[in-house]
Amino acid sequence: MRPVARQSRRGFLKRAAALLAATGLVGRGPAAAVAADPPELPSWMKAPGAGFSPYGAPSKHEGKVTRTFARSQAGTTGSGAIRAPLEALEGTITPSGLHFERSHSGVPDIDPEQHRLLVHGMVKRPLTFSIADLLRYPMVSRVHFLECSGNSQLLYQATPPNLTAGATHGLVSCSDWTGVPLRLLLEEVGADRSAGWILAEGADAAAMSRSIPMAKALDDALLALFQNGERLRPENGYPLRLFLPGWEGNMSVKWLRRLKVVPAPIMTKDETSRYTDLQRDGTSLMFTYPMEVKSVITQPSQGITVQGAGLHQISGLAWSGNGTIKKVEVSTDGGTTWRDATLTMPVLARALTRFRLPWRWDGAAAVLKSRAIDDAGNVQPERAKFIAEHGSNAVFHYNAIAAWSVAPNGEVKHVYA
Amino acid sequence: MRPVARQSRRGFLKRAAALLAATGLVGRGPAAAVAADPPELPSWMKAPGAGFSPYGAPSKHEGKVTRTFARSQAGTTGSGAIRAPLEALEGTITPSGLHFERSHSGVPDIDPEQHRLLVHGMVKRPLTFSIADLLRYPMVSRVHFLECSGNSQLLYQATPPNLTAGATHGLVSCSDWTGVPLRLLLEEVGADRSAGWILAEGADAAAMSRSIPMAKALDDALLALFQNGERLRPENGYPLRLFLPGWEGNMSVKWLRRLKVVPAPIMTKDETSRYTDLQRDGTSLMFTYPMEVKSVITQPSQGITVQGAGLHQISGLAWSGNGTIKKVEVSTDGGTTWRDATLTMPVLARALTRFRLPWRWDGAAAVLKSRAIDDAGNVQPERAKFIAEHGSNAVFHYNAIAAWSVAPNGEVKHVYA
Repeated sequence: MRPVARQSRRGFLKRAAALLAATGLVGRGPAAAVAADPPELPSWMKAPGAGFSPYGAPSKHEGKVTRTFARSQAGTTGSGAIRAPLEALEGTITPSGLHFERSHSGVPDIDPEQHRLLVHGMVKRPLTFSIADLLRYPMVSRVHFLECSGNSQLLYQATPPNLTAGATHGLVSCSDWTGVPLRLLLEEVGADRSAGWILAEGADAAAMSRSIPMAKALDDALLALFQNGERLRPENGYPLRLFLPGWEGNMSVKWLRRLKVVPAPIMTKDETSRYTDLQRDGTSLMFTYPMEVKSVITQPSQGITVQGAGLHQISGLAWSGNGTIKKVEVSTDGGTTWRDATLTMPVLARALTRFRLPWRWDGAAAVLKSRAIDDAGNVQPERAKFIAEHGSNAVFHYNAIAAWSVAPNGEVKHVYA
Repeated sequence: MRPVARQSRRGFLKRAAALLAATGLVGRGPAAAVAADPPELPSWMKAPGAGFSPYGAPSKHEGKVTRTFARSQAGTTGSGAIRAPLEALEGTITPSGLHFERSHSGVPDIDPEQHRLLVHGMVKRPLTFSIADLLRYPMVSRVHFLECSGNSQLLYQATPPNLTAGATHGLVSCSDWTGVPLRLLLEEVGADRSAGWILAEGADAAAMSRSIPMAKALDDALLALFQNGERLRPENGYPLRLFLPGWEGNMSVKWLRRLKVVPAPIMTKDETSRYTDLQRDGTSLMFTYPMEVKSVITQPSQGITVQGAGLHQISGLAWSGNGTIKKVEVSTDGGTTWRDATLTMPVLARALTRFRLPWRWDGAAAVLKSRAIDDAGNVQPERAKFIAEHGSNAVFHYNAIAAWSVAPNGEVKHVYA
């Protein structure tokens, strides 16, 4: 509310000289036409545009940007997964309309007025909560990724899948989640803190269920009600889901209807016959909770043609269920040399982290890789090392380095390199 | 990828005892039914749910959560504004479908293949850029609010408007914006840094135009291409908008088609006949750029009925175009006493900041207020002080404290108090 002269005096505007220090990139950028006269008025400036919309949608010109690579189990409706099109996205928030889905018997149509959460078992006061009840409790908001532990499982196969970044890595997304800390509800019912576990059950037709360690429930677990500002989307658990930051997505039980405090894990089908990781020696790992440090270059990636030599941007996503991304290294020569990418601030724990590196492509064949390192010291492994350690049948928790080849004609392909 | 026993040894799970320290809130929470037996299976668990959707949408049960209070100028299509329904939202990211719109001649239907940005005037190399050209430049992502400088202008009127928080304050929203720093393009064209100004022109039928100080252009201005991960929405400037963090929304010119480097402001209609602030003494302020420190309680607010005495959550939004929110104080007695609200971390500069305070309502009449303070020391003023200083005709840049009365029956109303 001040005239500009006063603004300047008060230092609102930083002097720009320092910011113009040469970056080594400018003046040699992508081809752009030299302008002669101002361009003709386009047709869309010659008549008033569209009126207001109560709820907006993407441009019709972006109609190809959809969730991708749906895989349903034969004979089912919505038992399977559909991926976020990572190659078309930027920043770190995933639009809710494109957040990946993983469902075990489709998306139930839940009436929020009728939905109830029962908390019982080893508690002093078994209670049921309506959504209206839950909305009165103190809430917190946190930006976190969610990753299906089966993400990237096609990369266990012997030959590189001929697929986009979204198809291979798109079972990960990131949202601003808002909800009630689970520990508040556990205090409300007087949960026995010495009980080690909590059964979480969803209100879908699969009654998808997992056993949750009490320690996680008392740490950072949320009863999530909102996603990116608005109420949860149906395919992400409307009206209520459990949310366990950094842990395999399947444990963040959607359409949550029941929490039972119990002394031992229940051994549900989704923690015994599924979501266990078969190792080289024939044993399986159970209860493998945190999603490992991981990254993927999303631009360029398969399906995107690099348009000629010169300046380009390499951009991608990194994340770790064990903490905060500390560093992402990028190689354009298949892993011989590495450079540190720039991380978009703020870098948040258990959230997608956007990394970027300008790349001056000389037009020769290249192989792009990214390698993420978290603040617990975990380093994303090369694929050969990962497979040597875990074998090719683990199905879950694949987190090895992904590689994209760039051909002289600009074509990009997934490769094992 | 480790069995749980090893996880525990390695300290992935924090011990929870410390976190259970009494908050003073639990065990006395909102009414919840005491559970006898597990509830009957609801109908939606008895058959498979819906299959996958390429692009998701909110639950049909949330159909009333839309942009709100559209105001078009008579005889126009989309010349006016429609607001974000703040009272229905949580967290800090505004879903793109509910981001407010302010348009001067509707939303143009722009073909991104045909769209061009011309940068000319006092430059060494006038250039035009296609969207494909721009997508090759180094990009950055930043979470920032956008506020129309006319937001809350109804509160200049003598009597409190009988409206929701969204209708009075919903010309503000917050997104994860991604784009090319404008200073890179200015270097690319060899802009004359001593030129003080840049004309920015939109490709809508209004050719909405503003003069931008060079210092801001060289500081933190973006050429935004993405909003919350995906390409800009049509009503927010698809395929390209200018974005000036913290400044009045109108300057972040949508559908950007032209930047002309000039020695003085152009005095466009939207910086002379509009977007100037008429003061008590009959003079007008021009070029009032940063949006002032401001806050509003969104829950409870008008249209929400407080459901009985007991524990409730007060939640709201604070922001400042001049920096970072340092503190938000909340009063439940009309401003006699104040308590510090909790700010959701991370608190980012020029971004919406969510604040919350648990409130144990005794059932008596109450008046709720919030007061924001930024790190530059600016304090959100009381309405009486603000009007005494600025008069009632400024139209723009209203940032005074908002008050909601809560009646013993739980009804909430906007009041001047």
